[in-house]
Amino acid sequence: MGKTIAEKIFDAHRVDEPFPDTHVLKLDRVFCHEITTPIAITDLMARGMDRVFDPTKIKAVIDHVTPAKDSKTAEQGKILRDWAKRHDIKDFFDIGKNGVCHAIFPEKGFVRPGFTIIMGDSHTCTHGAFGAFAAGIGTTDLEVGILKGVCAFHFPKTIKIVLKGSLKPGVYAKDLILFIIKELTVNGATNMVIEFTGPVVDAMSMESRMTLSNMAIEAGGTSGICYPDMTTVDYLWEFIKDEFATKEDALKEYSKWVSDDDAEYERICEYNVTNLEPMVTVGYKPDQVKTVKEMTGTRVDQIYIGSCTNGRIEDLRIAASVLKGKKISENVRAIVSPATPAIYSMALKEGIIEIFHEAGFCVTNPTCGACLGMSNGVLAKGEVCASTTNRNFNGRMGKGGMVHLMSPATAAATAITGSITNSDLYQV
Amino acid sequence: MGKTIAEKIFDAHRVDEPFPDTHVLKLDRVFCHEITTPIAITDLMARGMDRVFDPTKIKAVIDHVTPAKDSKTAEQGKILRDWAKRHDIKDFFDIGKNGVCHAIFPEKGFVRPGFTIIMGDSHTCTHGAFGAFAAGIGTTDLEVGILKGVCAFHFPKTIKIVLKGSLKPGVYAKDLILFIIKELTVNGATNMVIEFTGPVVDAMSMESRMTLSNMAIEAGGTSGICYPDMTTVDYLWEFIKDEFATKEDALKEYSKWVSDDDAEYERICEYNVTNLEPMVTVGYKPDQVKTVKEMTGTRVDQIYIGSCTNGRIEDLRIAASVLKGKKISENVRAIVSPATPAIYSMALKEGIIEIFHEAGFCVTNPTCGACLGMSNGVLAKGEVCASTTNRNFNGRMGKGGMVHLMSPATAAATAITGSITNSDLYQV
Repeated sequence: MGKTIAEKIFDAHRVDEPFPDTHVLKLDRVFCHEITTPIAITDLMARGMDRVFDPTKIKAVIDHVTPAKDSKTAEQGKILRDWAKRHDIKDFFDIGKNGVCHAIFPEKGFVRPGFTIIMGDSHTCTHGAFGAFAAGIGTTDLEVGILKGVCAFHFPKTIKIVLKGSLKPGVYAKDLILFIIKELTVNGATNMVIEFTGPVVDAMSMESRMTLSNMAIEAGGTSGICYPDMTTVDYLWEFIKDEFATKEDALKEYSKWVSDDDAEYERICEYNVTNLEPMVTVGYKPDQVKTVKEMTGTRVDQIYIGSCTNGRIEDLRIAASVLKGKKISENVRAIVSPATPAIYSMALKEGIIEIFHEAGFCVTNPTCGACLGMSNGVLAKGEVCASTTNRNFNGRMGKGGMVHLMSPATAAATAITGSITNSDLYQV
Repeated sequence: MGKTIAEKIFDAHRVDEPFPDTHVLKLDRVFCHEITTPIAITDLMARGMDRVFDPTKIKAVIDHVTPAKDSKTAEQGKILRDWAKRHDIKDFFDIGKNGVCHAIFPEKGFVRPGFTIIMGDSHTCTHGAFGAFAAGIGTTDLEVGILKGVCAFHFPKTIKIVLKGSLKPGVYAKDLILFIIKELTVNGATNMVIEFTGPVVDAMSMESRMTLSNMAIEAGGTSGICYPDMTTVDYLWEFIKDEFATKEDALKEYSKWVSDDDAEYERICEYNVTNLEPMVTVGYKPDQVKTVKEMTGTRVDQIYIGSCTNGRIEDLRIAASVLKGKKISENVRAIVSPATPAIYSMALKEGIIEIFHEAGFCVTNPTCGACLGMSNGVLAKGEVCASTTNRNFNGRMGKGGMVHLMSPATAAATAITGSITNSDLYQV
């Protein structure tokens, strides 16, 4: 019997199985941000266990509220900053060097095929785009991870998604993942790994794969995973070129991190997505999804482009191509948060920041607080947001607010008209 | 007996003197922002008086917390937005079009010599740079102003500051105003107008005059005032060119707004500032001022460049000239908030945003919340900030934090070394 990629990663990292179906894995990375890690740090200090298992494997960033919005968030930043300094955690990204965790950590080359990664953040599954097993965990697991470099997981039952055909122009990874979540439902993949495979994924950039994997959790999935291929190697090459003679060598090495043909799956779902339309959420759960065409004309108050789902350069380029030379509606306000300083700089050089400014967008520094109503774009009661983020829960972006999840292209078109709009109206 | 400029403005706007020394003035402008005006709006609504005296004379902006950081600030923005819409206040600057009130209102041409201006904001005195009488007021006065277009003031006793000589390279309006506040003390001008005159002021840009007038309140002054001259006309020309045949005509008209030679002053202070050094505050009051040289080496944690005092293009240019090609110290974080979208765009086109990014600064959208610990740069307990803002009160930028006020040049040099540093070290 063959094995899935997740099973292979488990096999390579298992250090113990103390109880049936409790696999203790060695961790390659513990990622940290300023909202969830300070709780763990403070608790470890209170227990007299202010230690870290390996400072080179811990990466930390301030990203949810940056710069600090009040004394509480300033203290959270300080706890993380002081901890990084105290333990010689060199990869700590402070204000000015910081970006959205799930964008900046891959960008800095911290993720590799076959890695095990944990973080106190639900969208840690993003990093599965590289063929890693990456999972969001709670405070206790985070403390154990920081102290011992291990974490316990259940056996990785896997759902395999096979995506055939090809996406129409104006249809993106975001539309695809909204469609998949609709199909699986919000708890259809609970405690399971979701593999994204097939020619549609093979043709995708790493950015798009990250958008796919990012929302695995919205169907309940522990991790989303894409198989590493030459696209993965190209993205990582800058960081791995000293390890391999050629890209082909790297690909050969990483190719062990794919599922066997005869691996056992909990479920296999095959979709031909050639006729897929741009999608949008309509209620308070990410599986409440309709086509943009069905929702055309729905009034919004705010547009938000950014987050760990859709704040990367590819996303900004797509939105800018829709917005170029146009103004946003007088009835809305619009915000864009480039996900990292490097993305911001690229956008600056490519004239994308100027396009956003001229369209009437507020361009914030890299941050992701708006997505969960923490900073830089919170909604008032009764307000509606067209958003490229990942969760439309009731009040997610502000108490009494409503969120429609969509792609950057749809969000940009919606900014122009002030109501939900298919981007094909504006794309050449 | 001659009259001061403030007395002349009072004479031209007086509609009543109901009690001795209570001058009710007609208002040319009521400026509004989202922190203080929603309280007035809500109260007026509760009293069944949801009216405005003249929507063309009311200007409103969201600037202190933008985009909203939480439900409370989202609601404040919504109250202001809905009010502007309800009363057809066309000059409302929403998220994306918004900037720091005391920077964007002059930039949009809303201030004229001889105007009376109120706002629920202590630094409303900034607009006196144009030869206007501009004063910060409380909620009750704001409500009356919104409803009736009038406000009551005491007789404008005036302190005349005469600035002779010329500023050395590396010494700016900010250094000068810190020096003046030290001389006057924090209550030396309470309930008085401060006139800034003399060749040093005559040679200043409007930006520098705004920096001077901005901090009049820090010596207790109701308004700071500079005489209008050709520099004022040049700044305003874009907005007044249909009113006057030539700039000389405009200057002739505005020249009535200067003090007479034989005007009566409460006090006249003459300073030769040729040997003035860069200045910095050292305690929790703006009159606790030393030279930068005396304070050189004082450790800081954060650098903040921005605010209604020093977030204008001139300030960003000066800071960028110090920072160009350099990196900030690893021991600090640095934040710059361009004061308006237009300033941001200019800085973008001039390569200044890139210089800040490459130096390691966090570049926020236009906002001023850090100055008063409301957003985008709040300090944690025990942290020290080198700041171009206007108030160093205990906890002003965050509970338990300490603020050293200084010029953008000094702040930029301090960012490079991580401790208070004279910019002459870095300027050519």
